[in-house]
Amino acid sequence: MTVKTVGILGGGQLARMMVLAGAPMGLRFELFDPAADACGGQVAPLQVAAFEDEAALAAFAERVDVVTFDFENVPARSAQFLADRVPVHPSPDALAVAQDRLSEKTLFAGLGIPLPPFADIRSRDELAARVGEFGLPCILKTRRFGYDGKGQFRLRSAADIDAAWAELGGQVERTGLILEGFVAFEREVSVVAVRGLDGEFRAWPVTGNWHVNGVLSASVAPARLSPAQYDAAIGYARTLAEKLDYVGVFALELFCRGEELLANEMAPRVHNSGHWTIEGSETSQFENHLRAVLGLPLGDTRMLGHACMLNWIGEMPDADAVLAQPGGHWHDYGKQPRDGRKVGHATLRGDDAAQLATEIEAVGTRLQRAEQVAPAVATLRR
Amino acid sequence: MTVKTVGILGGGQLARMMVLAGAPMGLRFELFDPAADACGGQVAPLQVAAFEDEAALAAFAERVDVVTFDFENVPARSAQFLADRVPVHPSPDALAVAQDRLSEKTLFAGLGIPLPPFADIRSRDELAARVGEFGLPCILKTRRFGYDGKGQFRLRSAADIDAAWAELGGQVERTGLILEGFVAFEREVSVVAVRGLDGEFRAWPVTGNWHVNGVLSASVAPARLSPAQYDAAIGYARTLAEKLDYVGVFALELFCRGEELLANEMAPRVHNSGHWTIEGSETSQFENHLRAVLGLPLGDTRMLGHACMLNWIGEMPDADAVLAQPGGHWHDYGKQPRDGRKVGHATLRGDDAAQLATEIEAVGTRLQRAEQVAPAVATLRR
Ligand SMILES: Nc1ncnc2c1ncn2[C@@H]1O[C@H](COP(=O)(O)OP(=O)(O)OP(=O)(O)O)[C@@H](O)[C@H]1O
Ligand SMILES: Nc1ncnc2c1ncn2[C@@H]1O[C@H](COP(=O)(O)OP(=O)(O)OP(=O)(O)O)[C@@H](O)[C@H]1O
Repeated sequence: MTVKTVGILGGGQLARMMVLAGAPMGLRFELFDPAADACGGQVAPLQVAAFEDEAALAAFAERVDVVTFDFENVPARSAQFLADRVPVHPSPDALAVAQDRLSEKTLFAGLGIPLPPFADIRSRDELAARVGEFGLPCILKTRRFGYDGKGQFRLRSAADIDAAWAELGGQVERTGLILEGFVAFEREVSVVAVRGLDGEFRAWPVTGNWHVNGVLSASVAPARLSPAQYDAAIGYARTLAEKLDYVGVFALELFCRGEELLANEMAPRVHNSGHWTIEGSETSQFENHLRAVLGLPLGDTRMLGHACMLNWIGEMPDADAVLAQPGGHWHDYGKQPRDGRKVGHATLRGDDAAQLATEIEAVGTRLQRAEQVAPAVATLRR
Repeated sequence: MTVKTVGILGGGQLARMMVLAGAPMGLRFELFDPAADACGGQVAPLQVAAFEDEAALAAFAERVDVVTFDFENVPARSAQFLADRVPVHPSPDALAVAQDRLSEKTLFAGLGIPLPPFADIRSRDELAARVGEFGLPCILKTRRFGYDGKGQFRLRSAADIDAAWAELGGQVERTGLILEGFVAFEREVSVVAVRGLDGEFRAWPVTGNWHVNGVLSASVAPARLSPAQYDAAIGYARTLAEKLDYVGVFALELFCRGEELLANEMAPRVHNSGHWTIEGSETSQFENHLRAVLGLPLGDTRMLGHACMLNWIGEMPDADAVLAQPGGHWHDYGKQPRDGRKVGHATLRGDDAAQLATEIEAVGTRLQRAEQVAPAVATLRR
């Protein structure tokens, strides 16, 4: 194989982990990010420029064999500009759908993937009318540019309508707004899956996720689902990928309420809930994403045993607490600490769920993070 | 943990794989190699200078928190020069022993580790006398600077004495010479093990190895040994590590002849026969070497199932043949092809030995390398 260079738009931790998964296979990388301190720049050449800078994009396209993303909110026009010059995976069209909660949810509905009620919102009156229709609670979100729970307002009573509009109404032109019925879910899960250039589809075991303040806090794989739910979840992901002619890794986030599964959103990239695949699966999401966008055979997505991923938000805790556990693995993205920032994660892997629960509990105690580990411990002990 | 920088003397594929194992943990690296195109330089900053260049070594010591090796034949004086400035692991003393086949074998003998007869050789007459004593065949080797079977001459008959002396006698001053009795081994195995700063010792499952023209061609783990042999092999490695107060990963190569185990040599570094640990073990040799030299807790060395490593010598074959197999992983060191050069490797992992054998056989057929895979297939089918 001649040396291939993969271009990545966005140079954060996802790009960084792609580089570290691809370098062993002899791949080269070029990253593109507006931020000079993007942490992927520690492991690969980084072009610092705005995503709108067409001269920089043109030069970038010259240096790479294929372009992919660590960040989905790249302007559609920039993605298309690149796609006119070099293969881009996932395609600008798939990206455009996933960038907009309204088109994404419209697509889910059209494919028969169940989801909470939703509506495009253009005015305060429309908001009030739809709140009346869906009932309370519900959630007003920006259609575009939301991440980690940002750009969301939860309405608990009719009195919240004005506050919600005051907070997000100003965005109606720039990002658009969508109202969603609130799902009183028992669990959140995600399907991380990959589709190859030739259409081959593979999914990792469904992952259970816990969010704190809208940000992923912990994941456990495999998630505890009934076999029917499990198959349904993977089936939805496959249907979606085929409809979008998707190439690469993506995540489909779902709510579980009893036997029901309701789609939340799709992320058109490697996903935080798939970080455990680095140590917990035969082939990581990062490696399989690269295999897919390069047209190489996909790797095995099976896992052995159980894995738990703990996100480190704001600052890195003490590594030794994790490294001292059998199956403890440490990831430090090389970022400066900052409130609410994802700076690293840990993965703990084990063959025996009960034993893994005990180890995670020990980590929680030693790091004074009992709350963070509690749901993972409980699900592994069930 | 504050950001740590690890300095590595030697910038080849072993350094490269250390960098790729340490970067996820947030470690930084500085490599030092006389060759400007050392392949580790593709993934970390590379200082190009002679190992004897004390100004360059002093500047290097300033930039790093700890120094280790990808290459053991660094001048003892340079290792000591660095050790006067910064922690160096393994220690220059341990390195010195492993650099010299005579001191290494003398140590083995002193520790009660069985090994073939050996003798220091300073003249043609001494060679003739020892050949008479050990019997034929036997092997004349340089004491220092040998690798991949280079600097060796096999004596099959008394008539070979002159040829052996003609070829290696000129080295008697620079490298020294050693004569070893030839072991008609049935199998070669290696123990890859790690010892922490605090003296904790862990070993990976013993690995079976096959060499072609003195160069490692294939490895399979775990090796098929009797439980007694298995324990003895690990015990020898432990005894050796403790005696040397060794810190880091090392390999002990052993010959198996019936129930006998005879030591061949020790490599004071991560080792080609441990490459399978990247995907086949909970913690790779590269990660554990870094944990050891940094004083971090050691990771679990257990493996799940079976793994086979195939070395690519000279040039890279077609990746797809390996990537298409479940559990197939591809390593390309980013080197220019050259006769006899280690340019990459593949690891295949599987839960079921018979199934793995079938996959390796398929790889061998597809790459027209049936000979290379045959011993691995046979051992997995036994
Ligand atoms: N309709 C809903 N009903 C109940 N909870 C919701 C709903 N929408 C969002 N949430 C909660 O808020 C979290 C974040 O919401 P969402 O995934 O829409 O935001 P995001 O900003 O795109 O997040 P991410 O960056 O994690 O993808 C969800 O994981 C869920 O916990
Ligand atoms: N005494 C011996 N008896 C039988 N075979 C031997 C003996 N010494 C070496 N060999 C064969 O030659 C191979 C290479 O020898 P040795 O390990 O001494 O060389 P090296 O150049 O240090 O190799 P490496 O780089 O693999 O460590 C051995 O793995 C073995 O197959």
